Amino acid sequence: MPELRKDPVIGRWVIISTERGKKPSDFSEPQPAQRRGFCPFCPGNEDKTPPEVLAFRDDGSAPNTPGWRVRVVPNKFPALQIEGSLGRKGEGLYDKMNGIGAHEVFIETTDHELELGDLDVDHIESVLWAFRERMLDLKRDRRFRYILVFKNQGEAAGASLEHSHTQLIATPIIPKRVQEELEGSLKYYSLKERCVFCDIVDQELSQGSRLVCENAGFVSFEFFASRFPFETWVLPREHHSAYEEMPPGSYRELAMCLKDTLVRLKRALNAPPYNLIFHTAPLNEPRLEHFHWHIEILPKLTKVAGFEWGSGFYINPTPPEEAAAYLKQIEIHA
Amino acid sequence: MPELRKDPVIGRWVIISTERGKKPSDFSEPQPAQRRGFCPFCPGNEDKTPPEVLAFRDDGSAPNTPGWRVRVVPNKFPALQIEGSLGRKGEGLYDKMNGIGAHEVFIETTDHELELGDLDVDHIESVLWAFRERMLDLKRDRRFRYILVFKNQGEAAGASLEHSHTQLIATPIIPKRVQEELEGSLKYYSLKERCVFCDIVDQELSQGSRLVCENAGFVSFEFFASRFPFETWVLPREHHSAYEEMPPGSYRELAMCLKDTLVRLKRALNAPPYNLIFHTAPLNEPRLEHFHWHIEILPKLTKVAGFEWGSGFYINPTPPEEAAAYLKQIEIHA
Repeated sequence: MPELRKDPVIGRWVIISTERGKKPSDFSEPQPAQRRGFCPFCPGNEDKTPPEVLAFRDDGSAPNTPGWRVRVVPNKFPALQIEGSLGRKGEGLYDKMNGIGAHEVFIETTDHELELGDLDVDHIESVLWAFRERMLDLKRDRRFRYILVFKNQGEAAGASLEHSHTQLIATPIIPKRVQEELEGSLKYYSLKERCVFCDIVDQELSQGSRLVCENAGFVSFEFFASRFPFETWVLPREHHSAYEEMPPGSYRELAMCLKDTLVRLKRALNAPPYNLIFHTAPLNEPRLEHFHWHIEILPKLTKVAGFEWGSGFYINPTPPEEAAAYLKQIEIHA
Repeated sequence: MPELRKDPVIGRWVIISTERGKKPSDFSEPQPAQRRGFCPFCPGNEDKTPPEVLAFRDDGSAPNTPGWRVRVVPNKFPALQIEGSLGRKGEGLYDKMNGIGAHEVFIETTDHELELGDLDVDHIESVLWAFRERMLDLKRDRRFRYILVFKNQGEAAGASLEHSHTQLIATPIIPKRVQEELEGSLKYYSLKERCVFCDIVDQELSQGSRLVCENAGFVSFEFFASRFPFETWVLPREHHSAYEEMPPGSYRELAMCLKDTLVRLKRALNAPPYNLIFHTAPLNEPRLEHFHWHIEILPKLTKVAGFEWGSGFYINPTPPEEAAAYLKQIEIHA
């Protein structure tokens, strides 16, 4: 059983994983390279993953057979375990609990060669609907307080399989970064009686110098205080605190804005590795006036990012305004 | 002039660097590999660095010539600039200021092949005294609020030069992680009237299962809620909030504990890349009863660490107790 442990100083929970356990001696040997050749996410290999929990199939094909467009399966090596109780307990001054949660994988396309941004808008919209559908289902489990949706694109960004996919982890705790955003935005709201993210959207639209893409529903821009070169945020223009509770028409506009942004990043930066993280409200909260869901895209371009983990201190060598100007001039309809 | 920018949601300051600026187009080409051959930190090349600000020389040799054991120079490509005023200002809802600060490099040995842990205890103690001396000098500059001392060992940990060195950045802001530790430990102190780090030291010494090394003055152990495999903390057993204000005899005991710990990590993990970060109190504070200075050593063993930046959510595949047991059985006197 994996274990959740809490940092007694700063309150951050971490997963001490056992399913994907690495023995100490595993690290003294060079790591094997990513396995090429066989791909468990390609059509025809459906029996090599745990049975699907959701699939979009246009042809009425049977579960766990080819015929799907988007397929969702439990992670074969889950970081958290679905069965059990939380079992909160102490160990002297430390706090811990059982590593209960869900860990699922969204296989975004049957085509092994494509990335999310390469798919057409209809297809990206299907992927976005799959996220929503799984979130709506999992939030009925009252043990869970948060659902983290994230993509590791490319080996350098942490992907262990090449075939395009996104992951979801439902946790009994709220990730520290999300907690910080909730607290920071509440502080701003207390002061101004406005959502800080709404104010950011307004300022980015009026200043324009960091904008990447805008449509009727969404805007993407290089973040003012970017930690990394080409750190890009995507936000709904209207205030929504939870991703899964947007009006149905929104997902198509998000698909359009996301595709535009990902294509620009891919062409500008030569198909960079990146992480894409959804920041949405905790589960079972009413609509929050101070929090605004959004996506953060973090291309992994620089190696000089080691000590940042330990210090929270970031040096970004590329001004966001230069990154935005560069992305804007990319030809995306070629 | 580099710029410091503040995240309006969570309050984190980042440096938008210009001296080490990367044009957007720099990222579309593969990065050149680390330059081998010529090393500006090797003896005889003293004129290839900015003039030294401190050097320990046993033979009375002249500044900026060979004869030193430890040498401190300004970083040739500083992240912050030493001259100027803070110039705090707003840009709509955003806050920024001039990137004022100091950025120095401690060249720890004349021998290009050695790592910090390979040096003898006397030599490591000299390096620790050099940190102290530079901190005591820089803290007289009232523009600075924090001094961050950190080491990137190995290219994968962010080192751009191979020759063993540590860096120091003096900043006009307190790094976010340090601020969090100050707040978290103050909360604990308010509740218990004890320092949380003192309590951690006590518990680690009595539990023993995560201990790596202890001597009269210091203790090192695998941290209970480690984010990374083999995340190792080093703390003084006595309560001290500021590194540079410890009693003079402490530095030798720290050198001994640090050497023991680094040798174990190097042998156990086949000379891993790692980051080593000093967490000390902000400048010009009185002695803080709730904060306890310490070192965090973060070996860079797993690639699966991308999305953690965006979520603050960590999955660690190696239980700290297993890591500690593995380190303890390493033969270090061979």
